[in-house]
Amino acid sequence: MAKQSAGTEIERLISLLARLPGLGHRSARKAALTLIKRRSDLLEPLAAALNEAAAKIITCGTCGNIDTVNPCTICSDPRRDQTLIVVVEEIADLWALERAGVVTSLYHVLGGHLSPLDGIGPEQLSIGDLVERAAPPVTEVLLALNATVEGQSTAHYLTEQLQGHGVRVTRLAHGVPIGGELDYLDEGTLAAAIKSRRTL
Amino acid sequence: MAKQSAGTEIERLISLLARLPGLGHRSARKAALTLIKRRSDLLEPLAAALNEAAAKIITCGTCGNIDTVNPCTICSDPRRDQTLIVVVEEIADLWALERAGVVTSLYHVLGGHLSPLDGIGPEQLSIGDLVERAAPPVTEVLLALNATVEGQSTAHYLTEQLQGHGVRVTRLAHGVPIGGELDYLDEGTLAAAIKSRRTL
Repeated sequence: MAKQSAGTEIERLISLLARLPGLGHRSARKAALTLIKRRSDLLEPLAAALNEAAAKIITCGTCGNIDTVNPCTICSDPRRDQTLIVVVEEIADLWALERAGVVTSLYHVLGGHLSPLDGIGPEQLSIGDLVERAAPPVTEVLLALNATVEGQSTAHYLTEQLQGHGVRVTRLAHGVPIGGELDYLDEGTLAAAIKSRRTL
Repeated sequence: MAKQSAGTEIERLISLLARLPGLGHRSARKAALTLIKRRSDLLEPLAAALNEAAAKIITCGTCGNIDTVNPCTICSDPRRDQTLIVVVEEIADLWALERAGVVTSLYHVLGGHLSPLDGIGPEQLSIGDLVERAAPPVTEVLLALNATVEGQSTAHYLTEQLQGHGVRVTRLAHGVPIGGELDYLDEGTLAAAIKSRRTL
C-alpha cells in the first residue's frame, strides 16, 4: 500500500486480517475499519476471544479434533459408538458431520490428504495413530474423505495400511446429491449413481 | 449452530468473526480454524494487533480520520494545501484517495450520508464541524461523495449549508471511468459524459 494515514498499527492489522481465508486486501481494509469503529462491541471482544482461544483451545491427542479438554468431549463421551471410527481430512469436515448430526461414533482427523507435490506424505498426516486405533473394540473404519483425486488416493493408501488389522474399511456412498439436477452433474458422479443403483 | 465440538470459546470466536464485513458464517468457521492452526504466526499476532489498535488508534478531532495522533498526520502536515477541504463519506474513501495520491489538501470525513429512513440526519454526521471549518484560509470545499442517490442528496444539503460562507463548493466530475466500456455503463453515466463532453 502506498500511503496509509493511520500509521503502522492499522497497516499491520490489515495485513494480518488479509491472511485469513476469504478476506482479500480490500475486504481486510473494510474489516479493519469496522473493527475500529465498533471498538467496544466488536474489536475488544474479538481480541479477548482470540486471547482466550490461544490460551484454552488444544488438540485432542486421540482424534485430532480441537477442544478445551484432552481427550476431547467426543472421544470421552461413553454414549458414542466405540466400534466405528469415521476418518476425515480436516476438522472442518468433522464439524460438518457433527452439524448434520449423522455420526454417533468416534472420529479421526488426518490433518489433510496425501499430496507428494506439496511434500505431504504419510508422516505428515496422523496415519500411524489411526492404524494404532484400529484395534478392538473398533470393528469398522469409515473413510469419509473428500471425493477428490487426493482424497481418494489417500483412502486407497489407508485401505492398504489397515489391511490385516481385523477392521472393516468402508467409504461414503457416491451418487446424485439430494436436490441435485442430473444436467449439472459430472460424468463421474452420474456413472457412480448408475453403477450403485437401487431397486425401488 | 446445532453442535460444535470445540466448546463455547470457538463458537464465540466464530460468531465475532462472522460480524466482520465480507465474512459469512461459513468463512468465519474457516477463518477460526486457520487462526487456531496457525497460533503463533497468525492468531497471537492478530490478537496483539487488535489490542494495539484498541489502545492507540484515535479519531482526529478536526477531520474525522483515524490515526495514532490528534490532529492526524494529514491535518498537521503544513505541506498540504490548507485552502481546499475534500469532503468524503467514510474513512475508506479518504484512504482510496490517499492511495491514488490525487489529493494534496485536507479532508473532512462526514461519517456516512443522510438517510432519514435509517434515522441518519444532519446531527448524526459531522456537518456542523465542516461548516465551522469553511472559513479562511479555506476557499474551496470539494464534495467527493458517492455518486449514489444518498450521496448526492447529502451533497445538495451540504451545498445549502455552505452558502454564504465565502467558499466555492465543487463536486467530482461524472463521466466514463478510465477503462470503462460504454456498453456496460448505465444511462445516467452516459448522459453525464455527453453533457460534459470536452473539445479535443
